[in-house]
Amino acid sequence: MADYVYGPGRTHLFVPGPVNIPDPVIRAMSRNNEDYRSPAIPALTKTLLEDVKQIFKTTTGTPFMFPTTGTGAWESALTNTLSPGDRIVSFSLGQFSLLWIDQQQRLGFSVDVIESDWGYGADLGALETRLRGDSGHTIKAVCIVHNETATGVTNDLHAVRKLLDAYRHPALLLVDGVSSICALDFRMDEWGVDVALTGSQKALSLPTGLGIVCASPKALEAAKTAKSVRVFFDWKDYLKFYKMGTYWPYTPSIQLLYGLRAGLDLIFEEGLENVIKRHARLGAATRLAVEAWGLKNCTQKEENFSDTVTAVVVPAYIDSSEIVKHAWKRYNLSLGLGLNKVAGKVFRIGHLGNLNELQLLGCLSGVEMVLKDIGYPVKLGSGVAAAAAYLSNSTPLIPSRI
Amino acid sequence: MADYVYGPGRTHLFVPGPVNIPDPVIRAMSRNNEDYRSPAIPALTKTLLEDVKQIFKTTTGTPFMFPTTGTGAWESALTNTLSPGDRIVSFSLGQFSLLWIDQQQRLGFSVDVIESDWGYGADLGALETRLRGDSGHTIKAVCIVHNETATGVTNDLHAVRKLLDAYRHPALLLVDGVSSICALDFRMDEWGVDVALTGSQKALSLPTGLGIVCASPKALEAAKTAKSVRVFFDWKDYLKFYKMGTYWPYTPSIQLLYGLRAGLDLIFEEGLENVIKRHARLGAATRLAVEAWGLKNCTQKEENFSDTVTAVVVPAYIDSSEIVKHAWKRYNLSLGLGLNKVAGKVFRIGHLGNLNELQLLGCLSGVEMVLKDIGYPVKLGSGVAAAAAYLSNSTPLIPSRI
Amino acid sequence: MADYVYGPGRTHLFVPGPVNIPDPVIRAMSRNNEDYRSPAIPALTKTLLEDVKQIFKTTTGTPFMFPTTGTGAWESALTNTLSPGDRIVSFSLGQFSLLWIDQQQRLGFSVDVIESDWGYGADLGALETRLRGDSGHTIKAVCIVHNETATGVTNDLHAVRKLLDAYRHPALLLVDGVSSICALDFRMDEWGVDVALTGSQKALSLPTGLGIVCASPKALEAAKTAKSVRVFFDWKDYLKFYKMGTYWPYTPSIQLLYGLRAGLDLIFEEGLENVIKRHARLGAATRLAVEAWGLKNCTQKEENFSDTVTAVVVPAYIDSSEIVKHAWKRYNLSLGLGLNKVAGKVFRIGHLGNLNELQLLGCLSGVEMVLKDIGYPVKLGSGVAAAAAYLSNSTPLIPSRI
Amino acid sequence: MADYVYGPGRTHLFVPGPVNIPDPVIRAMSRNNEDYRSPAIPALTKTLLEDVKQIFKTTTGTPFMFPTTGTGAWESALTNTLSPGDRIVSFSLGQFSLLWIDQQQRLGFSVDVIESDWGYGADLGALETRLRGDSGHTIKAVCIVHNETATGVTNDLHAVRKLLDAYRHPALLLVDGVSSICALDFRMDEWGVDVALTGSQKALSLPTGLGIVCASPKALEAAKTAKSVRVFFDWKDYLKFYKMGTYWPYTPSIQLLYGLRAGLDLIFEEGLENVIKRHARLGAATRLAVEAWGLKNCTQKEENFSDTVTAVVVPAYIDSSEIVKHAWKRYNLSLGLGLNKVAGKVFRIGHLGNLNELQLLGCLSGVEMVLKDIGYPVKLGSGVAAAAAYLSNSTPLIPSRI
Repeated sequence: MADYVYGPGRTHLFVPGPVNIPDPVIRAMSRNNEDYRSPAIPALTKTLLEDVKQIFKTTTGTPFMFPTTGTGAWESALTNTLSPGDRIVSFSLGQFSLLWIDQQQRLGFSVDVIESDWGYGADLGALETRLRGDSGHTIKAVCIVHNETATGVTNDLHAVRKLLDAYRHPALLLVDGVSSICALDFRMDEWGVDVALTGSQKALSLPTGLGIVCASPKALEAAKTAKSVRVFFDWKDYLKFYKMGTYWPYTPSIQLLYGLRAGLDLIFEEGLENVIKRHARLGAATRLAVEAWGLKNCTQKEENFSDTVTAVVVPAYIDSSEIVKHAWKRYNLSLGLGLNKVAGKVFRIGHLGNLNELQLLGCLSGVEMVLKDIGYPVKLGSGVAAAAAYLSNSTPLIPSRI
Repeated sequence: MADYVYGPGRTHLFVPGPVNIPDPVIRAMSRNNEDYRSPAIPALTKTLLEDVKQIFKTTTGTPFMFPTTGTGAWESALTNTLSPGDRIVSFSLGQFSLLWIDQQQRLGFSVDVIESDWGYGADLGALETRLRGDSGHTIKAVCIVHNETATGVTNDLHAVRKLLDAYRHPALLLVDGVSSICALDFRMDEWGVDVALTGSQKALSLPTGLGIVCASPKALEAAKTAKSVRVFFDWKDYLKFYKMGTYWPYTPSIQLLYGLRAGLDLIFEEGLENVIKRHARLGAATRLAVEAWGLKNCTQKEENFSDTVTAVVVPAYIDSSEIVKHAWKRYNLSLGLGLNKVAGKVFRIGHLGNLNELQLLGCLSGVEMVLKDIGYPVKLGSGVAAAAAYLSNSTPLIPSRI
Repeated sequence: MADYVYGPGRTHLFVPGPVNIPDPVIRAMSRNNEDYRSPAIPALTKTLLEDVKQIFKTTTGTPFMFPTTGTGAWESALTNTLSPGDRIVSFSLGQFSLLWIDQQQRLGFSVDVIESDWGYGADLGALETRLRGDSGHTIKAVCIVHNETATGVTNDLHAVRKLLDAYRHPALLLVDGVSSICALDFRMDEWGVDVALTGSQKALSLPTGLGIVCASPKALEAAKTAKSVRVFFDWKDYLKFYKMGTYWPYTPSIQLLYGLRAGLDLIFEEGLENVIKRHARLGAATRLAVEAWGLKNCTQKEENFSDTVTAVVVPAYIDSSEIVKHAWKRYNLSLGLGLNKVAGKVFRIGHLGNLNELQLLGCLSGVEMVLKDIGYPVKLGSGVAAAAAYLSNSTPLIPSRI
Repeated sequence: MADYVYGPGRTHLFVPGPVNIPDPVIRAMSRNNEDYRSPAIPALTKTLLEDVKQIFKTTTGTPFMFPTTGTGAWESALTNTLSPGDRIVSFSLGQFSLLWIDQQQRLGFSVDVIESDWGYGADLGALETRLRGDSGHTIKAVCIVHNETATGVTNDLHAVRKLLDAYRHPALLLVDGVSSICALDFRMDEWGVDVALTGSQKALSLPTGLGIVCASPKALEAAKTAKSVRVFFDWKDYLKFYKMGTYWPYTPSIQLLYGLRAGLDLIFEEGLENVIKRHARLGAATRLAVEAWGLKNCTQKEENFSDTVTAVVVPAYIDSSEIVKHAWKRYNLSLGLGLNKVAGKVFRIGHLGNLNELQLLGCLSGVEMVLKDIGYPVKLGSGVAAAAAYLSNSTPLIPSRI
């Protein structure tokens, strides 16, 4: 039953999450439960909390690993640092920023939304206007999605920090790094991010189930007075158990802890900078293929090109959801749908997580065939050739095999 | 590293959760991620939502499978049905009911706590007094833990329902079934439970990660007007996606879905009634062993004896946490600690989930040796003999092997 | 340690064996040992022995599943049917036929070797000459490798049978189907094959460890008088245990039995004819790519083109082993080395077993990059384009997803 | 289907092979195939060949890891060192020694069988008589099963060596260590064993599939002139590939190699001497239980008591195969059948491999219940009490948890 959609060979998983899990991680997770109150699990947890900070590039932050998804991690970031009615500035530029804004509103904050057309980055000019006008510091937080997964737009967090600094504005900087952290350049400490968060099923290449939230000292301080109602997502409970050395206020997934350990080990073995370079390489190759096919990137400006997901705009006479459906039905290829405003208009190629060059080229050749099948006049091989030309010049030898 | 507490042979896992996962479930979960928006996952989810109702013994209820733990499931049950300031009656009788009450208070409800000494069941007489005096129906909900995991106390839910009916009281009945559902007799529809909840790592014998909440039509109705702030735990989002047939407002754990499918299949193959009888058998056997050892059950009245966990009271001169520590260090046996008020005074034997007679007898023989090691004058073999005498009279042949 | 050659992403396994194992099979094998004398294992074995016959396309044959490799299966085929000194005709046309001939000689048979240049098929004319001259029936067996894995040459078994029939020659027909059975058209009964054999790690897509040998009634009859010394590989012991219904004269691998069950289920779900068509499709696509690259197939005649492995001849100025090494070091791609006479001259692309179109295209794009890296003037994308053009016209929808 | 004999909870596997596989080993083996000609597999193999020698306690021996079972390992030991017609002395004392003798005869050796009644050890007096009378050194080898799995009899190998030395007899000493090596005290070099062998599914606690044969320098020398026909089991092919550094003349099971690596790591972590002590402890505990039940050990003399398997004699009015059947049907307990001469008369408890105290006590309590069910007047708890009394005095703390 479980395999009632069986197709021969590997499934080619190119949605922008959940992503491919490395085999050693699948192995590490294939295990029975354990008593999480034995000495083993706290000892393991301690290493995870320490090592996961490297992924955020922070030494001063405090990480929390919630048994939840990205949506829960958002809620944790907001409710621990803010009080109902607080004014926050939030950028709307795609489905996931929209959903976060919806959450912000439902949680009772006064959300000052800065809109961008889908495909464009966060409007920092509009932010500057807000900051300039806010000498009273009514803005308590700026919320931004680092990488909008729906449109493949990466925002410039460093620029946001510089604006806040320029106006000496004390607003907290809350960042959704769900499809960026551990794949794109992200520097929590250097960029003064107050809360950063990601989900295990994205660049960390694990199953869904861990919402990892990292709080700066300033965010921890804010948590002491934040009045938003929270229990499950409350940092306070974790901090209490951290102090006790048992770490878990409620039962964690034993399997995900071992999986995270194995996943971090692989990331550190490859080297975080190499992981980021690999994503840059795969992103660039994908964009070259799209160009070769004569299609447009949903992302309008080069500075916002995302190295984790590419949203490809299809001609008006094609329904992009047909592409996704057909890829799955004929080639065992999973692509991302266009969502909301761009439903039917774009399909998405996720190129994040544990992935290599030939996997991507296999995907691109599949996209070419799908485009042809669906009636778009693509030259078979054109995108693969463009991508391969780039990759053959930029792919390093695998370090462990030199 | 991951096995740095390696001991030869199987770990004997007898904490009352997380519990032993059957091998076919571990196998079913040992898999890569998948696109949860492909047709496969909604089709799978549909079967799960339908079949999980059988575990709750409901045909009218609506289940929600949150990517969370029991603590999150509590929060979902409360915030979807109640508004800040609402008066609720809640029974305090052990660590987990305490934690739930703490959550109820932090979520802003007016909690009318009915205390019992630890080891005693919920004081239904006190409830009756409340109900009798509440002709104005200020009580919006009665919250009760079916099986208090800290003390091994099972409460009589049917009696609670009868009281509510006797006073024609419209309060919602919210039940924590974390260590009861799928192991003890639980009848959502028949007993008029409005919200029931459990966690995947308990009797369902899966990893931690699914908080399963089941709502009666009355609870769903209440959700329409409940004013508690909620987003991640909001039923509304799920109902919207149920209607659309895609089921998931945010990314589920693919692995847990396949695991739940395999787990339910095993439960149905054994037969839910047989699963419950097996728990009754193992619970009775455990109590006979405790008696043979000359030790006391923390549970004071036979009517409250729990078939999923037994809290064993140790003599005053023994620190029960030494028993737990020693069992793990010498015999690879994981027992449950005494928590809070009974810390140091009881240790707990979890006998729930995918477990059989010889596993339990192995555990009991281990407990005997630990008791001897720790200085309690136990007669080795006494508990095992008492338990085996019972089991050898009550254990049926394995149906598939007759 | 086990992963000390770790590279990010999937390994692209394109050696002609051992081949990719489907995930459901890996899952089915991830299990503890079991008592092989319990009723479960014979019941499972019975289904396997019955179903494996379909792979051989036989209803009259008797299969034996030896805990061994292809080399052991060879030995079983020979020693059970022949006596020391027996004259056998054997075709030499590549490394694996050579190794089998070496075994035939070491086992004491009088081997009449018919040589072909590597890249050519079995010389059936020479066989005819032998048969014509053998009115005394001194030839006891004709041994032929259906698909020579070293050169990618498929022989015409039906033609061999027709020759034997034309001369009414009673010689046994012994066939190495290691890289053909379950991938290429193979018909044991129709073609009058007396012993056919394969290994689990080839088209069956399992780990190494089962040498499956199938004997015709005539072969079983021959076994009664064959004087070759044999114990481990003796069919007699199996036949005795088949009769007893316990099936196993010595301990089988429990894991491989469950794996074979899962593997056969997948093959039957896809349909054996569809499996064979898939191999034909992938083989044709591969050859089109090779042609587009301007390289030669080691196989000289179209009638011998193999749909499971393609041996690609490289220009004299290139050492093909550098291609294999480089593919592994830079692109995590495993290709087959040239062996013996064609060492350094060919590299091999295995396209058998559980494999699909996009996996192959990923491999082909990798080969293109490797060729470029190594100094061969390939046009990137050319082979992929040629293969994709073919595949996009020939690949059916995945039946379970229509 | 695969689980059509499903029973809840763990299967209690107490046959003397195949035995329980540790979870880390199952995990290590849950993987796809790999190219065995890549640099990774030879590197891995090299560590295995080096480390496996520790299990044999040899520094001068040469190990071979055949893709076969114990029966194949026997054949390899014999055919590589002996020539047809060679006189060998072999001890018959149970089913497995019988089967080996049957093989020896079928392979064409002149077997001088020394019989013992089942339950007794090898008759070394009879060997001495042979040696004394063989000044012409017609005896080419002495073949002995270290631990006869059918009767639970361990023979004194050191005494055999001393006899050979006393008579300065050059006969090779060939030892079946299938159910002893890595569990009982075994010293290849010190005891002058020329060929020792075991199977992966025994004390090494892996799946079936590796027949490990270790040859002394004298045995390797003998192999140069031994005339027995052999190909698959020929050491020569391995030695050739050892020299080339590629190690494998034919395809190994990738999974078993990684499994062996993980298994050896666990054995070394526990310490081989501790592994042996653990077996001694579990063996002694089992015998005390048998005594407490009022039953007899099939092994007649204390000096031959086996620490890996105990054959328990049942009263004449009980059919021991009913015990085995009932244990499996009611308690999910797998015990060993009585074989051949002791069929119906004994059942066997295997206590070898990756096993700990509480697992054994669970098994013993199961045996007690089965005995009662089947009509034997056992006092429930008696055997467990006797075993536990011993274990509670002898079991050390788990080193990694101190």
